[in-house]
Amino acid sequence: MSNKSKLSTESYKGVRDFYPEDLFIQNYIFNTWRRVVESFGYTEYSASVLEPAELYKAKTGEEIVNEQTYTFTDRGKREVTLRPEMTPTVARMVAQKQHDLVFPLRWYSIPNLFRYEKPQKGRLREHWQLNVDIFGVDSNYADIEIITIAHRIMKGFGAKDDDFVIKINNRKIINALYKKFDLDEEKSHKVSKIIDKKNKISVAGFEEALTEIMGERALEFITSMESNEKLIEALGSNNKYTNELASLIEQLQDSGVTNITFDPTLMRGFDYYTDMVFEVFDLHPDNNRSVFGGGRYNDLLDIFGAPKVPAVGFGAGDVTIRDFMETHGLTPKYKKTIDLYICTTETKYVKEANKLANNLRQNGLNVAVDFSDKKLGDQVKTAHKQNIPYVICVGEDEVKSGLYKVKNMDTGEEVKARIDEIVNAIKK
Amino acid sequence: MSNKSKLSTESYKGVRDFYPEDLFIQNYIFNTWRRVVESFGYTEYSASVLEPAELYKAKTGEEIVNEQTYTFTDRGKREVTLRPEMTPTVARMVAQKQHDLVFPLRWYSIPNLFRYEKPQKGRLREHWQLNVDIFGVDSNYADIEIITIAHRIMKGFGAKDDDFVIKINNRKIINALYKKFDLDEEKSHKVSKIIDKKNKISVAGFEEALTEIMGERALEFITSMESNEKLIEALGSNNKYTNELASLIEQLQDSGVTNITFDPTLMRGFDYYTDMVFEVFDLHPDNNRSVFGGGRYNDLLDIFGAPKVPAVGFGAGDVTIRDFMETHGLTPKYKKTIDLYICTTETKYVKEANKLANNLRQNGLNVAVDFSDKKLGDQVKTAHKQNIPYVICVGEDEVKSGLYKVKNMDTGEEVKARIDEIVNAIKK
Repeated sequence: MSNKSKLSTESYKGVRDFYPEDLFIQNYIFNTWRRVVESFGYTEYSASVLEPAELYKAKTGEEIVNEQTYTFTDRGKREVTLRPEMTPTVARMVAQKQHDLVFPLRWYSIPNLFRYEKPQKGRLREHWQLNVDIFGVDSNYADIEIITIAHRIMKGFGAKDDDFVIKINNRKIINALYKKFDLDEEKSHKVSKIIDKKNKISVAGFEEALTEIMGERALEFITSMESNEKLIEALGSNNKYTNELASLIEQLQDSGVTNITFDPTLMRGFDYYTDMVFEVFDLHPDNNRSVFGGGRYNDLLDIFGAPKVPAVGFGAGDVTIRDFMETHGLTPKYKKTIDLYICTTETKYVKEANKLANNLRQNGLNVAVDFSDKKLGDQVKTAHKQNIPYVICVGEDEVKSGLYKVKNMDTGEEVKARIDEIVNAIKK
Repeated sequence: MSNKSKLSTESYKGVRDFYPEDLFIQNYIFNTWRRVVESFGYTEYSASVLEPAELYKAKTGEEIVNEQTYTFTDRGKREVTLRPEMTPTVARMVAQKQHDLVFPLRWYSIPNLFRYEKPQKGRLREHWQLNVDIFGVDSNYADIEIITIAHRIMKGFGAKDDDFVIKINNRKIINALYKKFDLDEEKSHKVSKIIDKKNKISVAGFEEALTEIMGERALEFITSMESNEKLIEALGSNNKYTNELASLIEQLQDSGVTNITFDPTLMRGFDYYTDMVFEVFDLHPDNNRSVFGGGRYNDLLDIFGAPKVPAVGFGAGDVTIRDFMETHGLTPKYKKTIDLYICTTETKYVKEANKLANNLRQNGLNVAVDFSDKKLGDQVKTAHKQNIPYVICVGEDEVKSGLYKVKNMDTGEEVKARIDEIVNAIKK
């Protein structure tokens, strides 16, 4: 054991190793996602984490591409990016087979995504994200379905309705407000970015930043966003988009999504959203933050020169869901996938133990055999330490009689069983 | 639809997009792997695709690190590699928690791996690979289990015993041969690389390359590897390693792995193998190649300055398994995860359709609703084109009567059912 070439056992900064206990929770999250979205008829697709860098230059927020992605040049001089989000990829895939695909297209995926940023709570350099999208439906029905799925997912993790709120807005409402305040495209874009960061800066800083762009009208602008009433006052009571959003909220409440509220300051970071945007927000005082969100993006296929396809969807990350579960005491307890551990009184019985194990495997049990020449007690301890629920010891008696003692490691209870009875002794 | 900024819809070179039909096969492969290895009591772990580049410099084959990896420098000046294989990662993870882990440790993972190489049949720049390893067992029992799992996996994909052969060797046998031919470490290493590439070069090229290293004894060396008899002649009939390997093969044949054969030219590319190595080889004339392989590596934890842990395992890639399945006609037929499509006679019934869908989802069905204002016949066609097995249409009659016609899209048969009867009508 020399130290001369001793390597670190640490993972790369900001990414995670998943030991079995960690992966168990990860798989619980993925399985919950899958169960809910498949129940709504969504089909899984996938793609590589490597994408041409150009893909992100057109429509992703500028800050994200320039400062926050892993981008490098390969030996063939191609610029490659580790995908920071899935939406450009799914848009690329839909555009590529647009003529073969059947719309409405309900698709989901659980990709890993990379961001080059300082690791902090809820933000790591790599995370996994459920992406759910419906393509080809322009009507509110699709928006309702997508938000209903988001709601069902939270319930799928055991959340109660008062654990979280769904905030909703429409980019077109905020655009109408920009118009009313005579902001051009460039200024609008800047104001959006400031509003998006509202919760991360002070009230004074927020006012100051807006004043810098729109001058003395900033205060009036801020006031108009303070409440629904003030906003309607500013836009007029017959504004198409506020009325549509009110109707959308009503329909959602009617179908059981009651914890939903209009929030005119809700932006969502990506530039490609065109209409409705929403966000699931944790209401727990210890984790008062966005869990995930999404929105409608009707123009994204433009960048491929493909015909327009209306789309609405969301992306939900594993790290924020994990934080949500921990905050609300919803994290599941670790359970092994193995049913039975077979010990041997002497290694000469390993062959018999293997035969028994193979028989039981064919009958649906997950079985491991202890090959070691450790004492029987130590072999049983190995099973105990690994939380394996049942143990059988194989020795001379068992091989001669064909009768095995199946030990329940929880209760200590032992049941004698022939080979064909073992599966039932364990499965019940 | 302007062409000015038209982006390509192609994926990055040498990686794959997985449309639902492709991902279906991928998931079939992953599920088959999982089922088999979990039946042997193996537990899943995972890690990030990003690893510090140092991890690969110590023990992976030189060629692989220098010429074949994706390695780049991040903004914090760290050298990062997209993992080309999983073994160094799992060794790192075992070394990190060596004192908390319970041995024997049976672990598996299904990571994606990257190689910077010219894409060709069976070799892409990204592939997924089942990694199965048992740590902490020095005896042949672990080798037997690992090879048995490899065999069961092939059977799990529907392979027959005469579709493939398992070739087996021991690095220590070849090392004994090197010693007999007075080859030092450097020459041995070079000869190993040449033998590893034997099938890719001509017989004359092979002889020439060996002659360059060992002079006129090359021919004698080649002869000694021609058959088991010649090898035993060269090493003596009481050689420890040939005898052990013969015993290992006998035990495997005894436990049902009959298609196994000793191959003294089998090398496996990685430098870290210390003892037994094996390879599953496709016998079909159209795909006469290695499917996957592995071996014993007892010294890999040394690079972390950690105590030695004996280990044996293998890595099986998705691309070669896919080629194997295609060659032997074993690829499964695509099946959607969705059970039922609900159409509406008018969009005003979408609300009722959603209610019905939500009810059925709670009872375990995967259901999609058509929101479009297309004609009923076109909605049914949408379901048909997507291979959805059942359709229900909702209109005035259905809402009034509470009776729904469940149409089997395969047979055309229709059954009238109340809400609580629909699940049974479909599940049978």
